[in-house]
Amino acid sequence: MYDVNAIRADFPILSREVNGKPLVYLDNGASAQKPRAVIDAVTRGYAEEYANVHRGLHYLSNLATDKYEAVRGKIQRFLNAAHEDEIVFNTGTTEGINLVSYGWAAPRLQAGDEIVLSVMEHHANVVPWHFLRERQGVVLKWVEPEADGSLDPQKVIDAMGPKTKLVAMTHMSNVLGTVVDVAAICAAARARGIATLIDGSQSAVHMPVDVQAIGCDFFAITGHKLYGPSASGAIYIRKERQAEMRPFMGGGDMIKEVTRDGVCYADGPMKFEAGTPGIVQTIGLGVALDYMMDVGMEAIAAHEADLADYASERLHGLNWLNVQGRAPGKGAIFSFTLDGAAHAHDISTILDKKGVAVRAGHHCAGPLMEHLGVTATCRASFAMYNTRDEVDVLIEALELAHDLFA
Amino acid sequence: MYDVNAIRADFPILSREVNGKPLVYLDNGASAQKPRAVIDAVTRGYAEEYANVHRGLHYLSNLATDKYEAVRGKIQRFLNAAHEDEIVFNTGTTEGINLVSYGWAAPRLQAGDEIVLSVMEHHANVVPWHFLRERQGVVLKWVEPEADGSLDPQKVIDAMGPKTKLVAMTHMSNVLGTVVDVAAICAAARARGIATLIDGSQSAVHMPVDVQAIGCDFFAITGHKLYGPSASGAIYIRKERQAEMRPFMGGGDMIKEVTRDGVCYADGPMKFEAGTPGIVQTIGLGVALDYMMDVGMEAIAAHEADLADYASERLHGLNWLNVQGRAPGKGAIFSFTLDGAAHAHDISTILDKKGVAVRAGHHCAGPLMEHLGVTATCRASFAMYNTRDEVDVLIEALELAHDLFA
Repeated sequence: MYDVNAIRADFPILSREVNGKPLVYLDNGASAQKPRAVIDAVTRGYAEEYANVHRGLHYLSNLATDKYEAVRGKIQRFLNAAHEDEIVFNTGTTEGINLVSYGWAAPRLQAGDEIVLSVMEHHANVVPWHFLRERQGVVLKWVEPEADGSLDPQKVIDAMGPKTKLVAMTHMSNVLGTVVDVAAICAAARARGIATLIDGSQSAVHMPVDVQAIGCDFFAITGHKLYGPSASGAIYIRKERQAEMRPFMGGGDMIKEVTRDGVCYADGPMKFEAGTPGIVQTIGLGVALDYMMDVGMEAIAAHEADLADYASERLHGLNWLNVQGRAPGKGAIFSFTLDGAAHAHDISTILDKKGVAVRAGHHCAGPLMEHLGVTATCRASFAMYNTRDEVDVLIEALELAHDLFA
Repeated sequence: MYDVNAIRADFPILSREVNGKPLVYLDNGASAQKPRAVIDAVTRGYAEEYANVHRGLHYLSNLATDKYEAVRGKIQRFLNAAHEDEIVFNTGTTEGINLVSYGWAAPRLQAGDEIVLSVMEHHANVVPWHFLRERQGVVLKWVEPEADGSLDPQKVIDAMGPKTKLVAMTHMSNVLGTVVDVAAICAAARARGIATLIDGSQSAVHMPVDVQAIGCDFFAITGHKLYGPSASGAIYIRKERQAEMRPFMGGGDMIKEVTRDGVCYADGPMKFEAGTPGIVQTIGLGVALDYMMDVGMEAIAAHEADLADYASERLHGLNWLNVQGRAPGKGAIFSFTLDGAAHAHDISTILDKKGVAVRAGHHCAGPLMEHLGVTATCRASFAMYNTRDEVDVLIEALELAHDLFA
């Protein structure tokens, strides 16, 4: 039995008020709140168990190293990776995708080589590829979603040509909630010798992920969206791809030896982890993933599917609200605009007065905004601790906004 | 009056025991402990005030954004930068120097162009330049320290030739404690149109820093050594150099507009800050810098100079200990080896049994180890909260190690 009230009680911030109203936090697509277990682990990490990792031999350094390195196995289990050393720690999806762009793609792709993307990609999965277009003549090929916001995997497969070297694709749209059939796409890509990168920033928060079943080469996640500390994260990199990569950032820990004349690099995953890492954040991320796995990803997905159904029914019942995207099986992420003159920012300001936190803007998805013919939307994005009652508060606040701007 | 006991009381971990002995934490060169104010700010940041920054319009997002962005001004004051927007947030010196390597140097330096380095550089200030050597034929020119560990600025100046494009130099050696006269070096470089990067990882912890007086183009600091959270940090980049740079990591927040066809980048410093940043860590770093500035950097420097004098006297009094480096005015960082067979790691293990945390290894300074003719040293590195009594405990523990291995 999914006890959402017990879960809510684990997140201290959810009991606070905002503007004199109980906080209804529906900005989870931007970042999730943290359970007490994560906050306590961070506090303890600094107050009782702190030292730098790897290079020390003293008690605190060994303790911090053990706790830090144990997170690799947690992430392996969370993503069902085949090997622990396929997990590279970083600060989140942005760094993860840049690692792939600089470490794998930049030294391999030639002018005219193609990268296939969907129009729904987040800027984190767009700008690193524009770098390759600007700097070395790589061609970006864009696949458009259907009218309902779904993405036809066959259209992605059809976009793969003899010059295609990489497919870089979101697993779940951060604007529409669309879930992409990445397994079908990765299977087709693999059969053609094309590498695959999946942006799991949103999906890993809301559904079970199995990178072996997906069959991708790279799978990027972001800790702060996974109820973990800010600037925590990781990327799964299949062993064979690691062997093809050159290092990205240079510094301590990613080397075996440095002399005046050259460097002998460490093997992966350390080769891709330069300098003192986010020690305490990573330990906190491990606690966040334990928390999610204890509740159960299937259970979280089922709870959020119920929220998505209910929110969908209620939002689509407002005939003055334009809700973007109705892909079957979509996640609990809703973007909308209001008929009439009200700007998305004005709506979010009204909602805020009622304690409802949503995001307004382009959601780092410029190509999708252009495709939808809007400059901005309001976005309500749900998480494991949200409730049907909060959907009702959202609807009431939207009705107020509609009354004010009508 | 510098009240070291009051300062110690602000750092919770310093009252703990290790192996049944009071912790004597002398591994500050690797990372510093955190005052309660920093830990509390991190806890509060997650438990009461958390949201993503910049792109929200709701209460919590505005609150987090205000607190986060206020840190830019704190770092500006800490480094005496001329402009707040010369401060780029990041995860520490490693990322900062890689930003300069990828964003400034890589697109500008040609095969045969030279970078001048000292042999004392940390790997974070070596490997990013080896990348340019490996990938585009840049030449690294090395300047050796004197026998006492000091660095003659004239030798650095003499190494600057018509092909020199960058001088990348530590401000304080993480192994020897040597303080480098970077102002003299930067003045000479500037007169020759050569850019200058100063690695302030150690110096900014121990002495007042004034980037305008130094006259450098880039000055990198690391938050976790500055009593701040792990994976916090910043780099000072002079405005004129920012204008010369292309972006490093791509993603959200560093753009004005993204379409299928191209990107319009944000202006600095946002141009160099891709994706959701280390929000809570950065807020914590601001609190750490406030703490240091409240105590006073001159006062911290004076306290540590006293510790350095006392530790130097006592360590050099052990005629079976080889202490590396006696540069005048050096910081309170001491590297040593023991006569006889004992490996540095064995010494640190003995010290750990007595509660004394030191580091053993190459200290991410391969070229310097080679220059010194050692593979590893033990390093005792002091901070604002250390005491003369702790020097005595270190000496006793070293005497025990000597007895055991003699």
